[in-house]
Amino acid sequence: MTAAQAREQFAAARVARLATADRDGVPHLVPVVFAVDEDRIYTVTDAKPKRTTALRRLRNVRENPAVAVLVDYYDEDWARLWWVRADGHGRVLEPDEPEAVHAIGLLVARYPQQRATGAVLAVDVQRWSGWSATGG
Amino acid sequence: MTAAQAREQFAAARVARLATADRDGVPHLVPVVFAVDEDRIYTVTDAKPKRTTALRRLRNVRENPAVAVLVDYYDEDWARLWWVRADGHGRVLEPDEPEAVHAIGLLVARYPQQRATGAVLAVDVQRWSGWSATGG
Repeated sequence: MTAAQAREQFAAARVARLATADRDGVPHLVPVVFAVDEDRIYTVTDAKPKRTTALRRLRNVRENPAVAVLVDYYDEDWARLWWVRADGHGRVLEPDEPEAVHAIGLLVARYPQQRATGAVLAVDVQRWSGWSATGG
Repeated sequence: MTAAQAREQFAAARVARLATADRDGVPHLVPVVFAVDEDRIYTVTDAKPKRTTALRRLRNVRENPAVAVLVDYYDEDWARLWWVRADGHGRVLEPDEPEAVHAIGLLVARYPQQRATGAVLAVDVQRWSGWSATGG
C-alpha cells in the first residue's frame, strides 16, 4: 500500500483511534472522529463531556507531541482485514485560531452530529502506512 | 460504567487496538485480536507476516511496559457510542512458556482463524475504564 493509498483509505473512514503518550511514555488511547486535510488530521475535543479525558490527550501532546492515529477494518474473514496508520506530531489549537476554525468547518461538514467547540488537535502526519491481508 | 462492566464489554469485542510507546515515548498503534482472562489480556504476534510491526510492539514493551488497549463502538447515531479502555503493563512471553501456551489456547478457542505461533504479549490490566454516550 502506497502512502497516497493509505491516506485515501484513512480519510474515508468514519472513526479512528488516537494514541498519545505523556512525558513518561505512558500511552493514552481514545476513539476520535476526524477530518483529513492533505497531510493533517484534525480532531476536536468536546467543551464539556469527557473533560478529564480530553484534557489528558491535550496535556500529553503538549508534553510529548509524538502521536499515532489508526483506522482499521475487522471482519471474521481475516482475508479482508486491513489497517492504516498515521504517525506524526500533534499541536493543540485554541478554538478561535484560524486553523482551528478551518478544522471545525471540515469536521462539521463531515459529521452533521458534530457540536463540539473545544480545543482542536492538529496532527502533522510524517508517515502514512498500511497493511492489508490481501497485500493490496 | 463500573470496572466489571467495562471488562465484560471489552471481553465480548472481536477486535481491539493496542498502544505501546518506545523509550522515547513515541506511540505505536495496531489493531489486535485478543482474549481476556480475568485481569489479563493476551494477544499473539504472527510468526512471519508483519514481522517488523510485530517486533516493534514487542521491543516497545520490553523498553517501556506501559500499554493501553481500546475497544470502541462507532455509529452515526452518536447517542450509541461507547468505548472501553484497559490500561496496564505488558510482558512478552516466548511461545513455549506455560502462560503463552494457555494464552494461545484461549485465542484459538476464540478465533478459529488463529494460526499464529509467535510471541505472546500479556497485558496485566491495572485499570478498566469506559464511557458511553448514554451514561450507562
